[in-house]
Amino acid sequence: MKNPWRLYKNVLPQHTDHAGVMWHGTYISFLEEARVEALSNVGLPYVSLTSNGMEMPVVNLQIRYMKAVFHGEKLVLKSYCLPPNGLRLPWKTLFLRDGELMAQANVDLVLIKVGRSGKKLLRKFPADLSKALLDLQKGPLEKS
Amino acid sequence: MKNPWRLYKNVLPQHTDHAGVMWHGTYISFLEEARVEALSNVGLPYVSLTSNGMEMPVVNLQIRYMKAVFHGEKLVLKSYCLPPNGLRLPWKTLFLRDGELMAQANVDLVLIKVGRSGKKLLRKFPADLSKALLDLQKGPLEKS
Amino acid sequence: MKNPWRLYKNVLPQHTDHAGVMWHGTYISFLEEARVEALSNVGLPYVSLTSNGMEMPVVNLQIRYMKAVFHGEKLVLKSYCLPPNGLRLPWKTLFLRDGELMAQANVDLVLIKVGRSGKKLLRKFPADLSKALLDLQKGPLEKS
Amino acid sequence: MKNPWRLYKNVLPQHTDHAGVMWHGTYISFLEEARVEALSNVGLPYVSLTSNGMEMPVVNLQIRYMKAVFHGEKLVLKSYCLPPNGLRLPWKTLFLRDGELMAQANVDLVLIKVGRSGKKLLRKFPADLSKALLDLQKGPLEKS
Repeated sequence: MKNPWRLYKNVLPQHTDHAGVMWHGTYISFLEEARVEALSNVGLPYVSLTSNGMEMPVVNLQIRYMKAVFHGEKLVLKSYCLPPNGLRLPWKTLFLRDGELMAQANVDLVLIKVGRSGKKLLRKFPADLSKALLDLQKGPLEKS
Repeated sequence: MKNPWRLYKNVLPQHTDHAGVMWHGTYISFLEEARVEALSNVGLPYVSLTSNGMEMPVVNLQIRYMKAVFHGEKLVLKSYCLPPNGLRLPWKTLFLRDGELMAQANVDLVLIKVGRSGKKLLRKFPADLSKALLDLQKGPLEKS
Repeated sequence: MKNPWRLYKNVLPQHTDHAGVMWHGTYISFLEEARVEALSNVGLPYVSLTSNGMEMPVVNLQIRYMKAVFHGEKLVLKSYCLPPNGLRLPWKTLFLRDGELMAQANVDLVLIKVGRSGKKLLRKFPADLSKALLDLQKGPLEKS
Repeated sequence: MKNPWRLYKNVLPQHTDHAGVMWHGTYISFLEEARVEALSNVGLPYVSLTSNGMEMPVVNLQIRYMKAVFHGEKLVLKSYCLPPNGLRLPWKTLFLRDGELMAQANVDLVLIKVGRSGKKLLRKFPADLSKALLDLQKGPLEKS
């Protein structure tokens, strides 16, 4: 697992709870932002999927919270788009503060097509998405 | 202005900022919940509007924050649906803690119809909405 | 596992994403509301813990999303407070719509004491919390 | 009013409502991020205020929503820190999409000191804050 996608976030007042600790639900927002940014970076804005009637919903989510992150701190998310596992597209993300692992998340997505007769799981991906997923698995070229 | 619509809310960890104070954006969520509940109470679930291609977007919002509300406290929102002001549907809401006024909000909505040729402001309301708005202006019957 | 704690929620506009589907992060908010309400019901408002320097942070969270929940729908959360697993306090929650299982969550909490010399995990719980946890495991008396 | 502070945001799924429109509460989050980033840019991280027992709560907020912003669009916030108005620190923010004005916000902050005997409004600002506010009013040097 090399070449993660990186997202840099500052922990703002609205991200914390009463104790000044980053609220455990805030991690989900950051995870989604990281995925959308990564997709966009390989030339596939998420909105180009949705405007073609496709969605990539989360079907499973697991987060392990190891250390508290506080108001005013800076986080780096390192996200890895892993090879498909059957119909599932797994992402693994590390939350780091000054190089220390604060939390770790595993998110599984699927691809669905929404049509007139309801929605269905797509087993075969459109060519541009397949290419984007391969590029995502390689990670950004310029970063190590 | 009698007979407000009431919404009772507990201030949870996720509603507060690092100082244990209810975050100023949380009030917007509570305001929307109050409006949707009030509409539903007079027989007009918001989803019945949207499934007919209508929306009631907020076009203006003003909140005056007077006193800090803290984690674990209980709030009552008293919402008043005021008579239309031209195309605008104004709502006034008081945020009270133990009878004390903590904040006050004024929100203006309009009614729009989303169609094939874009969306347009509706000057004339459907009959069921007109009736609901009149009922809302009267407030809940059983409360004083 | 009998006698769950129940929380009834309406899916509001702010809970959904662009597709009118309840956003996968919204489930976390509902889960926290369910736990705080349940604790409060057995006589232990969460704020009574925090004002004594204690917190119950989430250390692990896992959600399986089975079916999409839509704007305007009604959800029931059935939450079960399970017996402690070592230092962990596990909760299991079912999200139901019209009796159908839409999602399932497992959340592990721990109890910590925040003091001058930092914070530490508590292996032994204060008497009122131990009693509350036992009561929570039994579930509300009046419901089946 | 020259030299605004700029914040660039992508409208993500979690920012929108059921209609794919950016939810009216999301603007508040973006406004706070813009202010915190601007303060940080002139050398005053917000956390350096809070760690000295100070807070800058919002006491008044007004937003005019002119045009709907959609999922996948890009916004620029142009924020202007205006000269103090008595005890109030007014900020004006324009939300622009492709140069077009979508919304406009006015936010008033005050400075408070939280101490053992409660909190009080500060009429005189610490030197580093006064300097930061002056720098903020000038806007970033390198932008026009």
